[in-house]
Amino acid sequence: MVMTKELFPLVGVDIALFCVDEHRLQVMLVKRAKAPQAKRWALPGGILKPYLDTSLEGAARRVLAEKVSIELPLVDEVRTFSGPDRDPRGWSVSVLFYALLPLDKTSAVVQSKVEALEWSDALAPGHRLAFDHSEQLTVAVRKLRAKVAADVLPLHLLPEKFTLRQLQQVTEVILGHPLDKSSFRRRLKESRDLVELDEYVRGAQRPAQLFRANETFSF
Amino acid sequence: MVMTKELFPLVGVDIALFCVDEHRLQVMLVKRAKAPQAKRWALPGGILKPYLDTSLEGAARRVLAEKVSIELPLVDEVRTFSGPDRDPRGWSVSVLFYALLPLDKTSAVVQSKVEALEWSDALAPGHRLAFDHSEQLTVAVRKLRAKVAADVLPLHLLPEKFTLRQLQQVTEVILGHPLDKSSFRRRLKESRDLVELDEYVRGAQRPAQLFRANETFSF
Repeated sequence: MVMTKELFPLVGVDIALFCVDEHRLQVMLVKRAKAPQAKRWALPGGILKPYLDTSLEGAARRVLAEKVSIELPLVDEVRTFSGPDRDPRGWSVSVLFYALLPLDKTSAVVQSKVEALEWSDALAPGHRLAFDHSEQLTVAVRKLRAKVAADVLPLHLLPEKFTLRQLQQVTEVILGHPLDKSSFRRRLKESRDLVELDEYVRGAQRPAQLFRANETFSF
Repeated sequence: MVMTKELFPLVGVDIALFCVDEHRLQVMLVKRAKAPQAKRWALPGGILKPYLDTSLEGAARRVLAEKVSIELPLVDEVRTFSGPDRDPRGWSVSVLFYALLPLDKTSAVVQSKVEALEWSDALAPGHRLAFDHSEQLTVAVRKLRAKVAADVLPLHLLPEKFTLRQLQQVTEVILGHPLDKSSFRRRLKESRDLVELDEYVRGAQRPAQLFRANETFSF
């Protein structure tokens, strides 16, 4: 069976991989090695390979595996971007995913098949992005914020063990505004997503208790 | 350029078109006329036509336009379903959309290119559905409920002018449980999505005021 470009759109995946440092929501950008739009900065992405991938999420995890050498806790779909003009190769569909990288795992990110790789401010990336990736990034940030604003804790962005202070900081960075400490702590007390550990780290004033995510937690 | 089935997945759209009557959340099902899975009941859907469609949402609106002879107020993406085994024709991507049909517009639905068409209980459809459409329907219902549970009013499911009683009824049908009348009314009073009209309909006890959706409302 012979198929023509007019009948079959190009199908690919793009990924907004987020991490949070003490002050900023960051996104991983890559400098494209190959045409189209070679040398331009972009979200990491790739074409679906039906002979390799068992689903679009599988394709997103495969593309990310080349750049991040750990198993990612969360890779979730945002939405599709599609049309005849977004890619010079023809009518194309990109399925946008977002993924969350824990705070202490950014050293697991390796450069592969791209000219360069960097962490950029997700709200104000330092480059004009290729294709419709600026819009994609905006939509992915909005989805992440909406989730956290709807009271889902961003536990996948934290190390395996964390203090409540770290959790509040990451939550505030994503939302872009400070939270009232006592009402945030009250909410955490009622949350089934946190497990108290009998471990402490030295804090500024007194030892801070450590917590981990409950196995049943889902973002 | 010659392309092979191994490189290009089949791309299509499926649509869960909802309406609400006084008691039930309903979804439109069609009986497929053509293979694969001819004679099986399914969500309406179709293959993307890059020479006709300008986006996947455009494809969904085109497919629906054959069956519903009005402009639909809301067609929104749910998520993708993909893989090598979900369609006998090969590796396929379906982008699932949901659409909302106002209560008083079900007569605008016409049968076209299918063996039969019916409104079925969205929570317990009267047929085993083709492909992975049972799972698609479950995911679409969950998305609709989550939106309404997050306090978005389901105004697109109501006639252009409606009473607060009708609004509460539609909201309760979607959520699957009754709402406290006075706290629901309080919430509506604070809502910017409703516009009071100087029009009334005869109610059981006294005339009921009519409302419409604000132009800025988005579901």
